[in-house]
Formats: sequence, structure tokens, C-alpha cells
Amino acid sequence: MMKVAILGGSGYTGFELLRILANHPQAEVIAVTSRQRKGEKVEKVFPGLKNIANLTFEDPANFNAILKADIIFSALPHHASMEIVPNLLKNRKKVIDLSADFRLKDAKVYEAWYGKHTAKGLLKKAVYGLPELYREKVKDAALVANPGCYPTGAILGLAPLIKESIIDTGSIIIDSKSGVSGAGRAALLDTSFAEVNEGFKAYKVGEHRHTPEIEQGLSLIAGKNIKITFTPHLLPVNRGILSTIYASLKRARGKGQGARIFNIYKKYYKDEFFIRIMPEGAFPNISQVKGSNFCDIGFKIDERTGRLIVITAIDNLVKGASGQAVQNMNIMGNIPETTGLITPPLSV
Amino acid sequence: MMKVAILGGSGYTGFELLRILANHPQAEVIAVTSRQRKGEKVEKVFPGLKNIANLTFEDPANFNAILKADIIFSALPHHASMEIVPNLLKNRKKVIDLSADFRLKDAKVYEAWYGKHTAKGLLKKAVYGLPELYREKVKDAALVANPGCYPTGAILGLAPLIKESIIDTGSIIIDSKSGVSGAGRAALLDTSFAEVNEGFKAYKVGEHRHTPEIEQGLSLIAGKNIKITFTPHLLPVNRGILSTIYASLKRARGKGQGARIFNIYKKYYKDEFFIRIMPEGAFPNISQVKGSNFCDIGFKIDERTGRLIVITAIDNLVKGASGQAVQNMNIMGNIPETTGLITPPLSV
Amino acid sequence: MMKVAILGGSGYTGFELLRILANHPQAEVIAVTSRQRKGEKVEKVFPGLKNIANLTFEDPANFNAILKADIIFSALPHHASMEIVPNLLKNRKKVIDLSADFRLKDAKVYEAWYGKHTAKGLLKKAVYGLPELYREKVKDAALVANPGCYPTGAILGLAPLIKESIIDTGSIIIDSKSGVSGAGRAALLDTSFAEVNEGFKAYKVGEHRHTPEIEQGLSLIAGKNIKITFTPHLLPVNRGILSTIYASLKRARGKGQGARIFNIYKKYYKDEFFIRIMPEGAFPNISQVKGSNFCDIGFKIDERTGRLIVITAIDNLVKGASGQAVQNMNIMGNIPETTGLITPPLSV
Amino acid sequence: MMKVAILGGSGYTGFELLRILANHPQAEVIAVTSRQRKGEKVEKVFPGLKNIANLTFEDPANFNAILKADIIFSALPHHASMEIVPNLLKNRKKVIDLSADFRLKDAKVYEAWYGKHTAKGLLKKAVYGLPELYREKVKDAALVANPGCYPTGAILGLAPLIKESIIDTGSIIIDSKSGVSGAGRAALLDTSFAEVNEGFKAYKVGEHRHTPEIEQGLSLIAGKNIKITFTPHLLPVNRGILSTIYASLKRARGKGQGARIFNIYKKYYKDEFFIRIMPEGAFPNISQVKGSNFCDIGFKIDERTGRLIVITAIDNLVKGASGQAVQNMNIMGNIPETTGLITPPLSV
Repeated sequence: MMKVAILGGSGYTGFELLRILANHPQAEVIAVTSRQRKGEKVEKVFPGLKNIANLTFEDPANFNAILKADIIFSALPHHASMEIVPNLLKNRKKVIDLSADFRLKDAKVYEAWYGKHTAKGLLKKAVYGLPELYREKVKDAALVANPGCYPTGAILGLAPLIKESIIDTGSIIIDSKSGVSGAGRAALLDTSFAEVNEGFKAYKVGEHRHTPEIEQGLSLIAGKNIKITFTPHLLPVNRGILSTIYASLKRARGKGQGARIFNIYKKYYKDEFFIRIMPEGAFPNISQVKGSNFCDIGFKIDERTGRLIVITAIDNLVKGASGQAVQNMNIMGNIPETTGLITPPLSV
Repeated sequence: MMKVAILGGSGYTGFELLRILANHPQAEVIAVTSRQRKGEKVEKVFPGLKNIANLTFEDPANFNAILKADIIFSALPHHASMEIVPNLLKNRKKVIDLSADFRLKDAKVYEAWYGKHTAKGLLKKAVYGLPELYREKVKDAALVANPGCYPTGAILGLAPLIKESIIDTGSIIIDSKSGVSGAGRAALLDTSFAEVNEGFKAYKVGEHRHTPEIEQGLSLIAGKNIKITFTPHLLPVNRGILSTIYASLKRARGKGQGARIFNIYKKYYKDEFFIRIMPEGAFPNISQVKGSNFCDIGFKIDERTGRLIVITAIDNLVKGASGQAVQNMNIMGNIPETTGLITPPLSV
Repeated sequence: MMKVAILGGSGYTGFELLRILANHPQAEVIAVTSRQRKGEKVEKVFPGLKNIANLTFEDPANFNAILKADIIFSALPHHASMEIVPNLLKNRKKVIDLSADFRLKDAKVYEAWYGKHTAKGLLKKAVYGLPELYREKVKDAALVANPGCYPTGAILGLAPLIKESIIDTGSIIIDSKSGVSGAGRAALLDTSFAEVNEGFKAYKVGEHRHTPEIEQGLSLIAGKNIKITFTPHLLPVNRGILSTIYASLKRARGKGQGARIFNIYKKYYKDEFFIRIMPEGAFPNISQVKGSNFCDIGFKIDERTGRLIVITAIDNLVKGASGQAVQNMNIMGNIPETTGLITPPLSV
Repeated sequence: MMKVAILGGSGYTGFELLRILANHPQAEVIAVTSRQRKGEKVEKVFPGLKNIANLTFEDPANFNAILKADIIFSALPHHASMEIVPNLLKNRKKVIDLSADFRLKDAKVYEAWYGKHTAKGLLKKAVYGLPELYREKVKDAALVANPGCYPTGAILGLAPLIKESIIDTGSIIIDSKSGVSGAGRAALLDTSFAEVNEGFKAYKVGEHRHTPEIEQGLSLIAGKNIKITFTPHLLPVNRGILSTIYASLKRARGKGQGARIFNIYKKYYKDEFFIRIMPEGAFPNISQVKGSNFCDIGFKIDERTGRLIVITAIDNLVKGASGQAVQNMNIMGNIPETTGLITPPLSV
């Protein structure tokens, strides 16, 4: 039984970690911290977890409580995470960081998008925790940088195509739509119900912080520098990210192109339980992954223009955050990767 | 490992049975039938269940496939269920019927609200499957009539109060609000998105078919005939029933009445994992039970008028249908009652 | 052309006043104030009003700008309103106050529910602005207390029944469900999208501040003291209040009772454009009044229990606030009462 | 006062025509037909229009009732419209057709996407009713083909850019998201509440019938053949289309490019009341046009990739259908174009 601690657990990713780990047969949450909610019972902050998670939020200053864990999830915001992670590692704890602090390899890029980094030495050491691509590295990692929600759906949809060199890497456009939980649990006018409901808008167009993370992921696969256009939108739903990805095919026309692409996906993901490839012309719906760790991928060749349209769907809080974090925990703990994660989606 | 079959499994309660049983360690679905979808893979009808439920919808005429099961869930509509259940019982199968066909003990009452009954002989034999009240009878039942969604929330909220004779049983008003999945999976203008979304209305006011079922349940507890006023409403959400229940207290005023009622609930439900009592003045939210088998109960004494207000929340597809059906299955199968059902709600 | 000013116009009722008055042929908004947004263009705060309302939010301290108006709407919160209204009246302005400050006639009741009142002298002078009941008084009022959203739907549904003495006034229960805009435009966790969406709950059960306002309204009609039970709920929609009202009929059974009640409503509201009575057994939907000043009323006799169920629907921001305020303005300004208010609902 | 008839008025575009025309000071609906609802009062089919539209649905066979109108809106489905329009024109009626039947100039293209056309002779004669581009032609038209919802938002966003030759016309990608009312008023499982709510998906990717209409519109402006990639998605809201449009700029970098594009939009649309241009970096939200005839346009230069991102928002039922139809009616009737259409959006 792995002993687990969660730092900064009173937000939505904290809730998801508690929710998922409650059903995990080989992990036990022994501590969850929250600066704002310290001393409060978890069931008070998350009434849905009554009878499920019998814990009280710890003061984050209570470092000893945390150190009793074998593995520690940090659900702290960026900057807050980099303050504590080095200390955890010094104490020989394994760490899965859900913030952006250790995802980017290049400190200059981090600082250009997020501001000052105070633990640059760890950037190279951290493993980017996208198991379908970096499973072997995750196994031995002390520090896993859990991917961002948008990058997870984007990179999983594009990786096989880039590896097989069938798309023009200069032509990639990612048009993503995310549920509101992606904005975190916070009192903001912009995410208040009456402002969001029956609305739909793009935000941070061409300047969202997940842009460099996606580019780093794709460039690494391509072995060359890739620049993308990325437009996030706010969907009036609680959960889910659908990314509609456009790229020019090097060879679009001719018989059998659809089957060829389907087979590429099948080949790359044939052993991946969490990735579900749809036949050409069928498309994912975020409702079909809601509450689950699946990433559904569909595609269509637009023969008229020579473009490929790839559509991926994930639950931003599960495969896009806490579910993937538990998947990484399973790998690091050397237990079957799907343990605790074969939860069917709540499609309706 | 129990072998399970599901009849009429292409609707929402069928989906829920498949979803819940997919995670059940001691039950295996060996057949699921659908007249409309026979021959289609489950994952085509329910894309969310891909990689989860590897089954094909059987023709219901294929009776042999069904008979290989030990226990059979009927998710058929009323009238359709009574046609097949007698035959299943003759073949010594245990049956959990999710339709209304065997819930009412009095055939006349059934026929007044639902039309002709063709298997009246089974009405007395059927056990009303509300485990918190009738667990012992369910244990030995061959045929369990799984309660309706509205009656589940209403009866669980009122049972202790009636048993303890603290409310005027002539004063009960039940104002319920249900998510749209309660209307079933069907192509209807009335439940189409643009007609329901941003709307809210009452329907079948004073004439909903769950009225006699609630009255039967309460009368049985009271040992006398109870009539209620019941008003269902359609909520623009997928899942959940919140019932706001009004009753006059025999003794409303005076110190300690709130604590007294809290203690009554605690006493009656102290060993019930799925029932969560809230302290006076805290109230349930359907989002906190979404996807789970919980029934949350809150209450408030309105001292100004001498009334008690009880509010209960369930997920209509889980505790209000398929989850409760699996709870009954566990009891009938003599395995721990919460097996496969300790799933935290998807509160966000 | 009436000159109009709006105080505290950056919230939802302010938006609604601007939206409605934009189409009013005989009124012109000459000033709108906002402490928080002073100096900002209206179209920046409400992008929907670009090309519609070409105004800049004034500093509320700029009293002269306000005094150029003939009639002033106060959309300030309670307590803030009572600070400025006496001064406006001294300057011989007509005032329509959308806050609760002048709705209750009895200062003691106000102070029990809202806290200290600093302009008690005006309570008697203020006219309760429910035109269907108090039109004649509104005509000559200097200060109109615009009714609360819940009281509007509740009183309009009950007034004819109480006047005709056909219900037991001790038996009234009002179960109301309101859209989220009723909570105002504010950054609160409780009204953030992911907390509200797919949820439903009661709040302030038995202790909502609109309780004494409803009771005052009903008692005035009855000529005796009436106490009610009132339970508000939060609906996951932007707009609309549906109130399901229960009362025991003095004479419930017998032929023609439905027609009798229908005729009572018809008689009382026959000249009321904004009140739409439905035949027995048809029920209103908040979507059918959305964006309009209508109050739809339906009812059903529950013969089995002798109760009458009345259901009313309004748009909380229109008939429940700003639309009714403009209706009062029309009456005070001696122009046709429906001017600027015959806007069809945006049912879809 | 123009006399107006509406054919096929029991769907959502019919509702919108009735809603908008109810407030139109110079038009009167004298007849509305519906095959399915003939003989029923409008207020029965659309309860929101009670006290607003006092009409009964006519049998479409009652041709004389229709011919009393000066101008006729056809809200019939495609194919049905082409059956009746020639006859209306023969009777010297002005016709605004909301179906796709007369939008495409090339009969071969129509037949490739929609099937057989039986009134090809009218294709050349019909005027494409996008007033901002073809106002002069609309003035004298006998038959106006009212544009599709997706084409309206797409063409208005791209027209100035193509006219000024600042984008690579081979690079255009249109990623559109539409509310559910765009699918019409129908009983379909795919648009039922529980299937759509909390979901999001693409549909008809690369093969939606509005593709050739958009291409025709853009090609006409460019004076050359343009092919686009078009991906529609289904948004869980009632109304609104947001189109995110990508195109490569011929010259992306360098100072002042943003201002240059802003000025191009301003120049082309300076006299257009219904088009609202936002400064670079501000983006429209469908909630800000809901219920109104506005088309909001925002944009951003993605300097990193040399692409321009244009985002347009309309209400699919208003500027995307019935509002634009009334705008065309005003032009054809030689009355001010905004008459009856200056309705502020119901942003909340």
C-alpha cells in the first residue's frame, strides 16, 4: 500500500485526486494540505466525499505529516510548487507535480511565459509525465512534471503523425475548447455562472501559457523546432477538452489514405488502454470521456483542401490532470498502470 | 462470480447497469438484450463504454442466452416486463425488475394508474427493493421490484419521521425536481435540448404515477392510509432528484427539536452507508450525489409555522434505479452490500 | 421624453434597466452611476450594449448629473439605497427603489431581517410597486418600493385566491426556484459555474429575507396576519423564477371547482396585459417568460388531498425587478403602462 | 404597413420571425402556415407568444390566405421551398427564402450537396441576402435567398480581408461552434437534452452543406475560386454561433499590423449598425449577441506563426436566419434597415 500525500488539495484537481484514490486498492491518502482550509474536514469542503474520504486538511506548514508519505502530489499553483518540491526531493520523496513549474525544459522559455524560476536545476531532472510517450522515463523518475490539460490532448493526437512524418509540421493549428473546471476553483466574475452559461468565447488567443508546452512536446518528437497556432475557448460545461487540430497532409489524396492514418494510430497506441482510436469519420464527444482517464481520438481527411483534421477528447481533470497523475503514480510504484483508473465515464 | 443478464439494456438505466457492473468484482454481465439495437456492439450505442464493456446487444428472443445468467435485471418498460418475468421465475432465475410492474401490491391500484396487469399473482410475492427498509426480505426474494426514482428519495426522507410519529401524516407535500435522464433515452420534442435548457416547469401535477407508490410505501410504515400531494418538476440537468418535503410537526417549538430530529435520522440510518444525514440547516445538492448511490438528507424546522422541511437528494439513475438494483443484487447474492458501489460522486 | 437616471447600474438589474429603456420610446437614460466602474464606458462593462447604450458610468458622487433626471431608479443594494433616497426626494425627484429598503411598512420587521434602518420616516410614504394590486397608489407616488423577485411571483399567484377567501390562509407553502442572476453580479465561489451547473439545492430554508415581504403582501390582502413557509432553491439557469404554491382549499371537491378558480383569476386579471392565466392542468415554464415582463399562472386542484397547487413563472430580472420598475415608471409618468415592455420572451 | 406571410412557421425560425415582427412598427403578420400544426393557435405551439401573436396556423393548402400578403417568408425546409416559391413569384409576391434552395448560383453544386433542384431557372435571379455585401441588389429583388447561419458569420468576418488581399486565400480554416437551435425544432435522439448537455463534439467534419455556400461567397469577393476547410461543432447552448477563422497573412510581422487590420474592418463596416468591430485582442462571446441581429468581430495576429485569427459571433436564429430576413424585408420594403431590429441582446 503506497502512502500518498496531496499538497494544495482544496481545488478541483485536489478533489479529483481524492475521488480517484478513494477507489485505488494500492494507495492510501494519509495527508492532504490546504492553506485556506486547514483544520476543516474534507467532507465540509467537498460534501460529495462524505463517507468516502475521512480526512482533515492539514496546515501545509506541518511538514512532518507530509513526509510520512512515500509519494507526494503537488496540486499547488505554479511558483508555489517550485518552492516546496526541492525540499521534498531532498527528503527522498517521489513527487508528481501538477503545476507548470517543471514541465518546460528551457528555463528561459519558462521565465518568458510564467516569470522567475527558483529551482532551475530540477528542470532537466524532471520527467514529463505523459506515460504513452515517456513511460520508461517515468518508471525511474523522482520528479514527474504532470502535463497540462491542453497539451495532453494535443500531443497525444499529433505524436504518431509527426513520428511518421505525414504532416507538414509548419501547418499545425490547434483549436481547443475547455470546460470551466479548467479555470480552477475560485471566486471570479469571469467564471461565474450567469457570465458563462449560454455563452462561448475564445480567450488568451495566441498567448496561452500551454503554447510553449505543446511546442516543446511536438518539437521533441519531430527532432526539430515546431511552432503552432493555439486558440483556447471556454465551454459552458464542467469538464472536458475537445481539441480540433488542423494540419496539411504531405500526401492527402489517393485511395486508402484514411486507412493508412487509422493504422498509424493503431500501431502507436495498440497497447494503450486509455487511448481509444475511432474509425475515420467518427468523432469523439467530451461526454464520452467525462470522469474517465480516456483520450478519444477521431480524424477526417479533408480531400478538397489536403488537410487532416484530428479531434481529441479528454476529461481535463482526469487524463488532463489528476487521472494522469495517478497513472504516473502507478508506473512509479511499479503496479499495473490502470489500477484504480478503469472507471467508466459518466456519459449521461 | 455472479452471472448477470440485462433485458432492455439500450436505455439510460441499461447504461448505468453496464457502467456500475463494469467495476463490480463479483458480477459479470454475460448478456444484454435490446430489441432495437440487437446485433450492435454496446460500444456503438454507448461510445463511453468502449474498452469497458465488450458485449453485443442480443435479440431478446434469444432466451437461452438470458437463461445462462444467475440473476437478471429487467430494464424493460412497464407492461413489457410483466410479459417476461413470470417465465424467468419459472426457470428459477432471480429477477430484479426496474419497471413499475411489481411495485404496487394492490392490482387495482396498479390498473388504475398503469392499465391492465397480466401477472397479478406475482404482486404479493415481489419484494419492494428498498434495502434500507426491507433488507431482510430482499435477501430471500426471487423477484425484487426495484423502487421508482421519486419514491426512493421521498420514502427514505420520511420513513423515520413516520415511524416515530412526529409528523402529521395528513400534511405531507412532496415537491420534487428531476433531471432529464429520468424521462428515459428517447427522441421526444419535449425533452429536446432547446426546449429544456434554460427552462423549468412542473409536469403531471397531482397525477404522476409515482404517487401511489409513495403512498403505499408511507402507508405501510404508518400502518394506516396516507395520502400525499406530489408535484414533479423537470430540471435542466442530466441527473439528480431533489425532493423538498413539507409536513406539519406534531410538536414543532421548544428547544432541542432540531437535535431530536437529527438523532431520529441518525438512529434509523446509523448503519446505512448510502444514507448521509446532514446537521439541521445544511442541505443537500444533487451535484454531491451525482454518479453515486448516496441519498443525502437535510432538514430544517420552520418554527414560525410549525412545519418540518426535509430535503433529500439522489442520483435518479443510481440510487433511484440501477445503483439500488445492484445493491439489491448484492443482498440477494449474499455479498457485502456496498460491493461495486463505493464510487465517489462526480461532484464537479 | 422622461429623463431617467440609474444609480448603481453595473449589476444585472442595471443591465436590465439599460436594456429595456433602450427600446422605450418615451424615456431616455441621461445618467448611470457605478462606484466600481465609474469612468468606464457602459459597453465595456456590458459588451452586449455596444451600439445600444452610449453612456459612461458616472461617479455616484456626481450628484448634479443625477439631479438632471426627472425620475431615478436606484439599483443600489439595501442600506446603500436608504442613504441616498431621502436626498433625492428632497430634490423633488421621483424615485423607484429596486432594493428592499422601503418595501416593509414596519421598521421593526425590517430591522429584524435586514438590520438598522436610517430613513424610517419614509416607510409609510413609500408605495409598494406591484401595479396589478396598487396601480392607483403608484400613480401619485414620489417613492416606489419595487417588489422583490420572489414576492412578485408569490403574491400575484395568491392575491385573487385570498381576496375570494377560497383557501385556508394558514396552509400556504411556497416552494420557489430561481435562476442564478437573482444572486446578483458578483465574484462568489457559491455562484461560480462549476459549482452551480448540473447542481440544484435549496438555500436559506425558512429564513430568506423575502419571507416577511410576502407575508406583508398577503396579510394586507387578507386583512389579517398570514404566516407562510417559504423555500427558495437555486436553479442552474440564468433567469427565471418558478414558484410552486400549495394551499388547502376551503372547498376542494365537487364539479366545477377548476372552472371556478380559473374564473376568479380571469376576473381579477382580465385587464392585466402582463398576467397570463392558463387553463387548469396547463403549467408555466420559465423559458416562456424569459426576457419579458409576463407573469404566467397555472393551477391544479389535487382532489385527493383537497389542496390547490398554483404555479407562477416570471423572469426575475424583468417582472421580478427592472421590467416591473419600468412598468411603475410608466404609471408614474402617466404614459401607457405597457410602453417599452411588449417584448416577446426569448423562449428558445 | 407591410402585410407579411410566413410559410412553415412552427419551427424555431418561424418562432423568431413571429417574435421579431411582433415588435416591428411597419409590418404585420397576416398569415402563418404549418402543415403539422394547422388549425392550432400560435400560442399553443409557442406559449411564449401568448398576448403577442394572436394567430392560428393556416393549412399551407390555403393559398389565398398567403396571397393576401405583400411579402412572404419561407421557413420551409429545402426542397419544400423550391416547390412553392415559383408560384409565389408568378403571383408577383416578394419572397425571402430561409432555406438553402436559392443560395447557390450553380445548380450542379446545389445538386451535388442537396440533391435534385426543380427550379433552376430561379437560381440566377435570386439575390443572396447578405445586406452588408449585397444591399443594392436586395433592394430590387423579387426573391432573396437568405444566407445560412454558418456562412453569415464566416463571410462577414472574411470579406474585408479578402477584398484587401491581405490573407492567403488558400489557407482559410473555419472552426465553427453552433447552439442546438441550429438543428431545428425536432424530436431527435441526437439533440435530446441528456445527449447534448455537458457534451461537445464536431459533426459533418469536412462535409457540411454550408461549405459550398461559404466558398461561393468568398470566391465571389476574391474573383477566384476559394476552397476552405470547415468544421462545425455542436455547443450545449440554445443559440449562437462562434466561428474561429484562421488564415495566413501575406505580411504578418512588423509594427502596426493590428491597427491596419482594425482599420480595414472599420472602413468596410463603418456604416453597418449590426456589425461591431472589437479592437485587437478583444474577442466576442455569443452571449453578447443573443437575441439580437448583431455580428461581433474580433481578431488577433499570431505573430509567431504569421497567421491571423478572426472570431465572429452571431445569434444563429437572428443574424443567422430570421433577423437577417427581416433586415432584407426592410430593404426590399424601402424602410430604414434597422426597423424592428434594434433589440439589445439578452446577454444574461
